[in-house]
Amino acid sequence: MAKKVAVLAVNPVNGFGLFQYLEAFFENGISYKTFAVADTKEIKTNSGVTLIVDDVIASLKGHEDEYDALVFGCGDAIPKFGENAGEQYNQDMLSLIKSFSEKGKILIGHCAAGMMFDSVGAVDGKKIAAHPLAKSAIKNAVVSDEKFEVDGNVYTAQTENTIWMMMPEVLSALK
Amino acid sequence: MAKKVAVLAVNPVNGFGLFQYLEAFFENGISYKTFAVADTKEIKTNSGVTLIVDDVIASLKGHEDEYDALVFGCGDAIPKFGENAGEQYNQDMLSLIKSFSEKGKILIGHCAAGMMFDSVGAVDGKKIAAHPLAKSAIKNAVVSDEKFEVDGNVYTAQTENTIWMMMPEVLSALK
Repeated sequence: MAKKVAVLAVNPVNGFGLFQYLEAFFENGISYKTFAVADTKEIKTNSGVTLIVDDVIASLKGHEDEYDALVFGCGDAIPKFGENAGEQYNQDMLSLIKSFSEKGKILIGHCAAGMMFDSVGAVDGKKIAAHPLAKSAIKNAVVSDEKFEVDGNVYTAQTENTIWMMMPEVLSALK
Repeated sequence: MAKKVAVLAVNPVNGFGLFQYLEAFFENGISYKTFAVADTKEIKTNSGVTLIVDDVIASLKGHEDEYDALVFGCGDAIPKFGENAGEQYNQDMLSLIKSFSEKGKILIGHCAAGMMFDSVGAVDGKKIAAHPLAKSAIKNAVVSDEKFEVDGNVYTAQTENTIWMMMPEVLSALK
């Protein structure tokens, strides 16, 4: 049976990355709900287009068991994550990644996704792909130089430009 | 000098295709303005996310000379284009494609873009790539089986999955 996916979108989010997942899920009959990592459902893409997604990240708390997988939609919010790490929406995001991981659910993402997964202990000892700029910040995972990596329940692509290479394995895991 | 691009988004639009152009333009310092092929700026992606773009297609009329290129962002509006061909926004879209073509501007698109370009005489005798389902409806262009084609001012990709192969040539033309 097709699985259900919680898709997180930071603000601003890379639209090319985000919609690569969403349109593929849509075309393959995989259920998903989109959550803004923000206080409102209205966010922006890096490219400046306004998106209104389904809900805010706070609403996902306590509903982890309704989902089989989590996608981290990376974007230009992340290079300045340090400045905003204390915001409730970012704390919610981190605690939800941790919670999905502890429940053994599928984790999917690109670019700095692996760095976020690593920061909450979700990929200890696992092989992941990540943006070269994020590599030095990753402590407990093994970051390869491959375009993407699949290790157990964790699917990571180096950047939005390599998601398509990983997508067949992601779809196969979610169908 | 970098050129300015009018990006058309049908309703619903394939977000993967649309944002592949927009994020690449954003990252490469290419100016763009987004126009909904609709009566309102609020449209949907195929995958159901609400987008608020810059303006509606009607506002582009008479402003062609402010742009160097036009992108046709295809989507699930197109399989039912026949039912809605008489809508003013679709008539505006076709007349704008024709006008951009007559002024020798760059035309870019994927999937059924070539069919739209063909229907207004913008690609007569030109080699284009198009979705296999659109092929039989294309009368005056030569549709190849390649993943993308560049012929003079016309850049076409077979589907949203092959835009990345064409993108280096698109960016080179727009920078």
